[in-house]
Amino acid sequence: MELTRAAAVALDDVDPLASFRTRVVGASDDGPDRLLYLDGNSLGRLPRDTPAALARVVEEQWGTGLVGSWASWIGEATRVGDVLAAGILGARPGEVLVGDSTSVNLYKLLMAGVDAQPGRDVVVCTADDFPTDRYIVAGVAESRGLTVRQIPADIDEGLDAATLAAALDDRVAVVVLSHVAYRSGALADLTALTRLVHEAGALVLWDLSHSAGAVPVELTAVGADLAVGCTYKYLNGGPGAPAFLYVRRELQQRLRSPIHGWFGQRDQFAMGPEYDPAPGIERFGVGTPPVLATAAVEVGAALVAEAGVAALAEKGRAMTDLAVALGDAWLRPHGAVLASPRDPSRRGSHVTFAHAQAWQVTQALLDRRVVPDYRTPDRVRLGPAPLYTRFVDVWDAMDRFRAVLAERAFEAYLAERSRVT
Amino acid sequence: MELTRAAAVALDDVDPLASFRTRVVGASDDGPDRLLYLDGNSLGRLPRDTPAALARVVEEQWGTGLVGSWASWIGEATRVGDVLAAGILGARPGEVLVGDSTSVNLYKLLMAGVDAQPGRDVVVCTADDFPTDRYIVAGVAESRGLTVRQIPADIDEGLDAATLAAALDDRVAVVVLSHVAYRSGALADLTALTRLVHEAGALVLWDLSHSAGAVPVELTAVGADLAVGCTYKYLNGGPGAPAFLYVRRELQQRLRSPIHGWFGQRDQFAMGPEYDPAPGIERFGVGTPPVLATAAVEVGAALVAEAGVAALAEKGRAMTDLAVALGDAWLRPHGAVLASPRDPSRRGSHVTFAHAQAWQVTQALLDRRVVPDYRTPDRVRLGPAPLYTRFVDVWDAMDRFRAVLAERAFEAYLAERSRVT
Repeated sequence: MELTRAAAVALDDVDPLASFRTRVVGASDDGPDRLLYLDGNSLGRLPRDTPAALARVVEEQWGTGLVGSWASWIGEATRVGDVLAAGILGARPGEVLVGDSTSVNLYKLLMAGVDAQPGRDVVVCTADDFPTDRYIVAGVAESRGLTVRQIPADIDEGLDAATLAAALDDRVAVVVLSHVAYRSGALADLTALTRLVHEAGALVLWDLSHSAGAVPVELTAVGADLAVGCTYKYLNGGPGAPAFLYVRRELQQRLRSPIHGWFGQRDQFAMGPEYDPAPGIERFGVGTPPVLATAAVEVGAALVAEAGVAALAEKGRAMTDLAVALGDAWLRPHGAVLASPRDPSRRGSHVTFAHAQAWQVTQALLDRRVVPDYRTPDRVRLGPAPLYTRFVDVWDAMDRFRAVLAERAFEAYLAERSRVT
Repeated sequence: MELTRAAAVALDDVDPLASFRTRVVGASDDGPDRLLYLDGNSLGRLPRDTPAALARVVEEQWGTGLVGSWASWIGEATRVGDVLAAGILGARPGEVLVGDSTSVNLYKLLMAGVDAQPGRDVVVCTADDFPTDRYIVAGVAESRGLTVRQIPADIDEGLDAATLAAALDDRVAVVVLSHVAYRSGALADLTALTRLVHEAGALVLWDLSHSAGAVPVELTAVGADLAVGCTYKYLNGGPGAPAFLYVRRELQQRLRSPIHGWFGQRDQFAMGPEYDPAPGIERFGVGTPPVLATAAVEVGAALVAEAGVAALAEKGRAMTDLAVALGDAWLRPHGAVLASPRDPSRRGSHVTFAHAQAWQVTQALLDRRVVPDYRTPDRVRLGPAPLYTRFVDVWDAMDRFRAVLAERAFEAYLAERSRVT
């Protein structure tokens, strides 16, 4: 790989996704001091069409249509779910519902899953999974009197099949796994790991927060049971946007949400005496759905679907390949080493470097208008969203990263806590 | 009470809240065929300031500020919670959190409450409470092996102290009650019923969905333990807006959310191995909070606080008094009878009439540009929001209601199911 800036520009010149840069706000700046936003895996950029879509929902549907607009709002959670299913998740209509947060959805599906596996008393997760996943697994296990079996996955290389296999037996009710690891970007083998879980008679619950919109996901093809994920990262749904949940069609009737809300009720407006869950994916709904915020999810998801996940994933890997190569050449001599799989087929769309002063390095990068993510204790995470990041943006960001290390600019910063991402 | 239109206009002429009509979208129309929106208790109107506030969050904070905006977003759930606490709920700073749905919040607080009452195995609720409340109570009880004791409250007159007292004993862990009944508008005595529950050693969990912003609520003064409520009704937060939850300060350390999400964690970005809930109200948070939608809640809640709940409640009672008097005079002869407390001190801000063909009557009213709510099986509910509804709007709506009944216009409609409200 040629590591000149001209080579990066040449890659942009033939990028079939180049035009999407103009479909989000703020990504079109070409100036030398422009913001290099490599945090699309934390908060995706604002799609250009989102303000108008929100204004339509707010001013026309709410402001003028008032309660009459429920005629369209009532189907929004499943309609946008179907957009995700078809364009991003490889699922069938009626298998995906938008609403609540990823954490609440994980709780609902995990509770439903363990309750559908009587006689099995173990929940498996990885020791390095995203905090909310681990905390919710532990809470559900405590609540249901189950045992948690934490897999000691490699925090840089991710989970391999042999390690998972060693944790599985006929006591396992549900296995909770992240498709792309939040810190390293390591990509789990959706097909192979799902098969392993099934061979043990367990259900698998995939967290797709870092993979939806970044790498191909084929939930139906792999026979995945359950999944949850976030829409504010690669799907550009906005800060704290409603999450999604997926339940394989054949499982829906067997599973029951632990939270018996009126939006999960079969005949909601009969307001009858007993909770009787809806037959389909709607049974995993709870309260009145977040209408305004879901409208923003629809725009972001449709934009990603239009670009195509396969093309996005290919570009994402090429961009992280460039970052890895530049890291080897420019950062490693200064003590920042790759902390992600080197094989691009084993990565999502982000890549991470370890450095002893990672927090301070992150502050120095922010001051030089590069936006990475600090991840405790010693990682700098770079998420070049393929929808709107250019190869030259990666090149320039790595160049500034090199300068921060070479000049030891990070030493001017005190160690401190991260902001939210 | 004089029942002429001129008398209604005269009441509007001295209404101290009259100017607030211009602060929401669509309420200023004076024409004879204007929409008479009496469903502010289902979906409050759009505040004029909301689109600009949303645009600021979307276009400036998200579009331009990107992840850097988390510096302000991170405190939004408690900041807006404090706005509700001070202006609307009579609670102290740090007792109210905005986020999730009312149903999810009810689930969290009820689970936390029953788990904090070991040795007590009964949950009390009313047989006629809003469906989601009853369903969640039943689900939590089933999950925890508890018994539900349903109080047979009068569906028109609401719950009285003697009926509640008869349901209380030392087996009761938590009592779930609605402050204002969703169908009849009957107002429960927050002070007296809270005291009764406490005398039995139980915790009370108030659902304030139909009272927040409509009648004075003094959670601290009455010593209420727990509360939840909705922000899209009288608080004008928008369709499916994030809900709120309240936990009395002295209880917070004892209670633990059943859903161990990372936004409830004490030291969130340490991403440590164990769930360790935050010391304050933040422990009842779960996933990444709904930033955009909460911005709309802030505008709506601030507007209600500016008007003042005491003034709103006084006007609300005067408006429902007018509706009751006109109902007696005009509707009763045609078979529509009051199904709400006649004493205004025992009502919230909505009032309900029973009619055998209530569904059809509702359709006929909608076609005459009156927006009420149908409530199964035979109720027409009128919610004249005091923030922006005029006395003459109530008068005109009742006049159209009279015409629908007198002309038997409703007979042109088939019985059918309701839309969402």
